[in-house]
Amino acid sequence: MSKTSPGNFFEDFTLGQEIVHATPRSVTAGDQALYTALYGSRFALHSSDEFARRIGYPRAPLDDLLVFHVVFGKTVPDISLNAIANLGYAASDFGVPVYPGDTITTSSEIIGLKENSNRKTGVVYVRSTGITERGAIVLDYVRWVMVNKRDPKAPVPDPVVPGLPTDVMAKHLEAPDGVVLSGYDIEQAGSPHLWDDYQAGERIDHVDGMTIEEAEHQMATRLYQNTAKVHFNQHLAKDGRFGRRIVYGGHVISMARALSFNGLANAFRIFTINGGTHAAPSFAGDTIYAWSEVLGKDPLPRRKDVGALRLRTVATKDRPCADFPYKDGEGKYDPAVVLDLDYTVLMPRRG
Amino acid sequence: MSKTSPGNFFEDFTLGQEIVHATPRSVTAGDQALYTALYGSRFALHSSDEFARRIGYPRAPLDDLLVFHVVFGKTVPDISLNAIANLGYAASDFGVPVYPGDTITTSSEIIGLKENSNRKTGVVYVRSTGITERGAIVLDYVRWVMVNKRDPKAPVPDPVVPGLPTDVMAKHLEAPDGVVLSGYDIEQAGSPHLWDDYQAGERIDHVDGMTIEEAEHQMATRLYQNTAKVHFNQHLAKDGRFGRRIVYGGHVISMARALSFNGLANAFRIFTINGGTHAAPSFAGDTIYAWSEVLGKDPLPRRKDVGALRLRTVATKDRPCADFPYKDGEGKYDPAVVLDLDYTVLMPRRG
Amino acid sequence: MSKTSPGNFFEDFTLGQEIVHATPRSVTAGDQALYTALYGSRFALHSSDEFARRIGYPRAPLDDLLVFHVVFGKTVPDISLNAIANLGYAASDFGVPVYPGDTITTSSEIIGLKENSNRKTGVVYVRSTGITERGAIVLDYVRWVMVNKRDPKAPVPDPVVPGLPTDVMAKHLEAPDGVVLSGYDIEQAGSPHLWDDYQAGERIDHVDGMTIEEAEHQMATRLYQNTAKVHFNQHLAKDGRFGRRIVYGGHVISMARALSFNGLANAFRIFTINGGTHAAPSFAGDTIYAWSEVLGKDPLPRRKDVGALRLRTVATKDRPCADFPYKDGEGKYDPAVVLDLDYTVLMPRRG
Repeated sequence: MSKTSPGNFFEDFTLGQEIVHATPRSVTAGDQALYTALYGSRFALHSSDEFARRIGYPRAPLDDLLVFHVVFGKTVPDISLNAIANLGYAASDFGVPVYPGDTITTSSEIIGLKENSNRKTGVVYVRSTGITERGAIVLDYVRWVMVNKRDPKAPVPDPVVPGLPTDVMAKHLEAPDGVVLSGYDIEQAGSPHLWDDYQAGERIDHVDGMTIEEAEHQMATRLYQNTAKVHFNQHLAKDGRFGRRIVYGGHVISMARALSFNGLANAFRIFTINGGTHAAPSFAGDTIYAWSEVLGKDPLPRRKDVGALRLRTVATKDRPCADFPYKDGEGKYDPAVVLDLDYTVLMPRRG
Repeated sequence: MSKTSPGNFFEDFTLGQEIVHATPRSVTAGDQALYTALYGSRFALHSSDEFARRIGYPRAPLDDLLVFHVVFGKTVPDISLNAIANLGYAASDFGVPVYPGDTITTSSEIIGLKENSNRKTGVVYVRSTGITERGAIVLDYVRWVMVNKRDPKAPVPDPVVPGLPTDVMAKHLEAPDGVVLSGYDIEQAGSPHLWDDYQAGERIDHVDGMTIEEAEHQMATRLYQNTAKVHFNQHLAKDGRFGRRIVYGGHVISMARALSFNGLANAFRIFTINGGTHAAPSFAGDTIYAWSEVLGKDPLPRRKDVGALRLRTVATKDRPCADFPYKDGEGKYDPAVVLDLDYTVLMPRRG
Repeated sequence: MSKTSPGNFFEDFTLGQEIVHATPRSVTAGDQALYTALYGSRFALHSSDEFARRIGYPRAPLDDLLVFHVVFGKTVPDISLNAIANLGYAASDFGVPVYPGDTITTSSEIIGLKENSNRKTGVVYVRSTGITERGAIVLDYVRWVMVNKRDPKAPVPDPVVPGLPTDVMAKHLEAPDGVVLSGYDIEQAGSPHLWDDYQAGERIDHVDGMTIEEAEHQMATRLYQNTAKVHFNQHLAKDGRFGRRIVYGGHVISMARALSFNGLANAFRIFTINGGTHAAPSFAGDTIYAWSEVLGKDPLPRRKDVGALRLRTVATKDRPCADFPYKDGEGKYDPAVVLDLDYTVLMPRRG
């Protein structure tokens, strides 16, 4: 029996299958320091223990997207080692905050399978859940990926495509217990603009651009213990479709979130990711820009101190976003767009 | 009202203005590990908790320049986002040591303003102070930067240029309380040369060179949450004056300090930065060399175990320093010089 | 007296000489995070405090090779600053596990000296030992390096070549006290293959490749405070034998170990390094692949829960290892081979 794992192919998955993913991961202040070095994240909650304590956290929790990447990375060896494309995300709920010292493990359930008409590939829908060592959920999300078949002739089950909530916000909107925004210091947070100041339809150009280097995206992706081959092997990539290593899509999400600080500095936590698309691949040398649109505003039940903003953040490469590039009249993405992310953040309200 | 900050222009500053900078920063062992990875710093006090304890510190404090960069980084969004050049530093006093877990915040006072004759730019003089969560000062320094005007015709106040001490040493020279150098182990520190062995006028070639990579200076500068646009955006830089991203000047200071270990291994703390000039920009691919001159020696009041050395450290690019390149007869820097730093270190004395 | 150290030349060493190396190093969670980012290591013992506790460790110890590199790095300024080549390793015993917060110091004894016939160089055999602040040995190993003479005419002592054990396993095979593998979770560890499943002579292709970037190997080597000039200075290297910076051989060892997870996921600790050769230098841009052969299997005395596997791991550059490239009929390495490492790991046994 071969000692190495070739990863799963489309016909290896079964509906309802449950997978406990390998490599539990204790996260530390070292991971957070690397995250800061990789993206320059400046959201005060994740940067300062003191700031965190003043609004009811015991200390600064890790950046939400660092948690996302660690949970996601675990699923790769079992789910997407033979994937062609990560087609989308939906229904990502962030749970309890994660602190240095916590240990995250991830498990998944296969919730949908649909062979493509060419019979060479199929789409796998999977719900993955990351939990702490105390069993508290830190992230629960759905993604769907196109996975190769080992053998095009292999029989596959009848197609099942799960219904996915398009708006997680409608489901439940509870602010974290114990968090009281009265101690929130807008001067330290870096912006006077609070939940009350944003309007549905408002668009914000995040102005700055950041250029990706090979060493950076490789270090990031390895930090998350994401093993997808396409990110690390130039010897293989040089003969592939793009001739180069592809940047992990999550790296671009984190860059866009860090850039969004300029305009959304008080979006102190990501609450849910409602949906996301990697519209085009990114490569080292690309400069990432971003802009956001406020899709909606929701108060939270029983809370006057904090509200939810639903956002679309669009990232482009090598193209500033002052004119908000997105889709053309036929719904096709502008060729510069690399990311289209629909998510919900928490933001303090005026008292 | 625009949600993004364009940064301040020259005419936005007023004399005496006080600014609390955003993004308090808790520093950790992760930041120190990255600092070591970025520069290879080997000063024993910052490398070993045990070494630190033997001379009276509770544990290894962070590298002084890491503290400098964190304090400096905070000021960028408010002070130098629209800067053309960081003209100089002066009067930097390092205060209490900073340990993992401390949270640093920075505030600034505008102490001078002088429009340039072209009316397009002006020089802003600013005193910035970093403090811990307990209010203890970790760094207090002055810098002056050339900042663009938004509108050349905007009226500006009468020029005020502050008097700056050229020799911080004269001001106060107190060794840190509780620090007793009798436990200092020169074998572990890496050099037998103590304060007594250095002479004013002595010059030391630090021999080695280190090549800068894009990923390294970007990661360093983001670690410090320094947001200056010129360091990160190749898409913008390609059409700029240099065609490339400029390396944060502080990155070169840290490289020079790390290189200076070979010759100054017992310079266990930076006490003050008396003045500094970035003589030329550095770019990825440049190899940094350095040499130092002992400008002066001062005993400390009531201390026989430790003395102060005033140093000039000069860094060059792509040019070894065996012949101590500096200025020509007209006071113009050798074209290879990138940094001219005048600072004071503490060093153990023979008992 | 010059303040800078030129390093030792061959004629500076004496048989039996003992050297205490500079720069004690407290290791932290930050170092482990960087190690993960640099190599993507996924061995569960080093990744998860919870996993470690379940098999008797107080928390996750640092990766064994991170400890190796830190101990090795200390020896460079005294032993190999003027080395031409690191000829080999032998008899490396890993001692107590190292945890964040431990402080490592290294000392060495010169155990052999042999001038080469050209009289320009000689081979230095050195045994180096790393200990914690409590005096516990974390690593004890022998290496031999070819070192330049300062003066070819300098007299040298009679040659002494130490006898080196070729099989450390025979010496002593004690599993760590307190470690009980009954709690070992193969699902979390990522592979069902245990000690019982491997056979002497079995060969495993580790499948994946990882491309080296300049920023990565520089950051790694500086993290270990390894000061060898050849790794950092492109300005000097451009006129040298290879025209470029040479990657620290230990960086390739760590890449090979990380790649070996796919096939050897349950090799939870490195026990000894029996011998090692850097068959060719590596450079940025090289893609490292690896394969392993099981050289032997040994039970441990009084232990039914854990056994030792002796392995050869061979790393190549720009050449996949499906056909196990190694040596030709005359014992010469395949030109793609960069590393030949003979080491012993611990692996759980079926109950």
